[in-house]
Amino acid sequence: MSKRLVDVGEDWLVARLLKGLPGRADVLVGPGDDCAVIGRPRAKVWQLLKTDCLIENVHFTRKTEAKRVGWKALCRAISDIGAMAGQPAHALITLAMPNDLEVRWVDDFYAGLGKAARRFGVAITGGETARSPGPIFISVALTGQVERRRCVLRSGGQPGDAIYVTGRLGGSIARKHLDFIPRVAEARWISDRFKPTSMMDLSDGLGTDLPRLAGESGCGYRFAPGLLPRTKGCTIEQAISDGEDYELLFTVTPSVCSQLESAWRREFRRLPLTRIGELLQPSRTRKPATIRGFDHFAPAK
Amino acid sequence: MSKRLVDVGEDWLVARLLKGLPGRADVLVGPGDDCAVIGRPRAKVWQLLKTDCLIENVHFTRKTEAKRVGWKALCRAISDIGAMAGQPAHALITLAMPNDLEVRWVDDFYAGLGKAARRFGVAITGGETARSPGPIFISVALTGQVERRRCVLRSGGQPGDAIYVTGRLGGSIARKHLDFIPRVAEARWISDRFKPTSMMDLSDGLGTDLPRLAGESGCGYRFAPGLLPRTKGCTIEQAISDGEDYELLFTVTPSVCSQLESAWRREFRRLPLTRIGELLQPSRTRKPATIRGFDHFAPAK
Repeated sequence: MSKRLVDVGEDWLVARLLKGLPGRADVLVGPGDDCAVIGRPRAKVWQLLKTDCLIENVHFTRKTEAKRVGWKALCRAISDIGAMAGQPAHALITLAMPNDLEVRWVDDFYAGLGKAARRFGVAITGGETARSPGPIFISVALTGQVERRRCVLRSGGQPGDAIYVTGRLGGSIARKHLDFIPRVAEARWISDRFKPTSMMDLSDGLGTDLPRLAGESGCGYRFAPGLLPRTKGCTIEQAISDGEDYELLFTVTPSVCSQLESAWRREFRRLPLTRIGELLQPSRTRKPATIRGFDHFAPAK
Repeated sequence: MSKRLVDVGEDWLVARLLKGLPGRADVLVGPGDDCAVIGRPRAKVWQLLKTDCLIENVHFTRKTEAKRVGWKALCRAISDIGAMAGQPAHALITLAMPNDLEVRWVDDFYAGLGKAARRFGVAITGGETARSPGPIFISVALTGQVERRRCVLRSGGQPGDAIYVTGRLGGSIARKHLDFIPRVAEARWISDRFKPTSMMDLSDGLGTDLPRLAGESGCGYRFAPGLLPRTKGCTIEQAISDGEDYELLFTVTPSVCSQLESAWRREFRRLPLTRIGELLQPSRTRKPATIRGFDHFAPAK
């Protein structure tokens, strides 16, 4: 019998899909990082490209406030631009809708999009509406810019680098996943003063995303579960596995840690910054037994 | 009772959605043309942005060859870049799939994408896979570049301009809609030698798209149904209404018509170019009774 998606992992599938696709000289970073990076290697400014989708009954339901769905749809992509220390610029919105959807839902959805666009300086420059014979389907395509000197990839971490997270982890699905604030300002600030060696945003949970970051950097890692900054009421396992935190995960050389931490406290008083572990030589990963990832194609539990 | 999508038209909805969204100074052309145009007004090269989606059981079925679905998905967006005389550059692919989809479908779909990408010089620089609780959803985001001097909008037509179409119209759904060749080379050639005053690609049928082009140009129009270049076996009504032709519709000042036509015959021997009518003063549109458009939210017949 032929393989079905449920039999294979998302990471396996994506790696398979990307084999043999044509490239271009101006693609500096292709699939596998938070965004694609486009430009001439020595240009002062590079372009960032990102898409992200939300699907009814997977990411939200008809009962979810449409305005918050619109906010989240754009902010997820903004978070990825931010995770490379970039600034978001232009968005195109694809919205496929069943025939019986109320026009009011669409208006509210666009109100949420517009609110996020205004806050983060994004112009919605087009897109498409289409009919869906199933759930509501939303896809956001977003461009951004980043100065070459500021751009941070997932792949630059070195053994010994300190690992940090912003904010608090876990419990997002019950609380902030519809209202989170992408850490664009924080990432811009860090990249200007303490250039991280690697960075990404936490979308699938630390338990999935930290191994990705370390893997792209060719490193192992260890972290102290007891040190994780947890959302009030969350267990350590929730902080590791829940996902949808949209906080920054980044690494810096250990020599800048104390300066970074004191400067951060002065600049962002209300947002914690926590050193949770360090990158290691690749063979030396310590994987806590609690780590479990989110796989889009895993059977529902 | 509140309004539902089925009660309102697509054009009405899109116009409503776009009100009140924030802009940016670098958005030269926003929603309403084939692509968004981004850049500084006096820059030599502008960027084009486009998204396009395909949905299972709307645009294709599970029985449609997946490779041809992949080709079509990318070529529809390439056609829009071409319609502004641009060259496509970087694509991001969003693919939401039900759990029971065979991995082979995905492989074949990507083979079709790759074939189109190689032919038109596009790099697939990323994207996303997700789980769909309904049909397969595909969204393609594509960037392109166009020299400022070559860029052709929908809005530059003048009363008296001659209206042309490339190729033959009608019957695409039974034949070429999965295998069409975007007219990038033709549009580049025309824009270099006989800069059109307005241009777009025919996706919803001449009966819908010509009024759009004329409307954006602030013109009326007339065309001779008997002059339409028809796919073999198609009626005039089919040539006007079927849609999915992906041919170019453009206008030029009448003084260049004879030179354009003879140069075209030398350059593109196998592709007809047909003068079908002219733009008029806005009050003077002659709408043949056969004109009928395709509306994504119209009830199925």
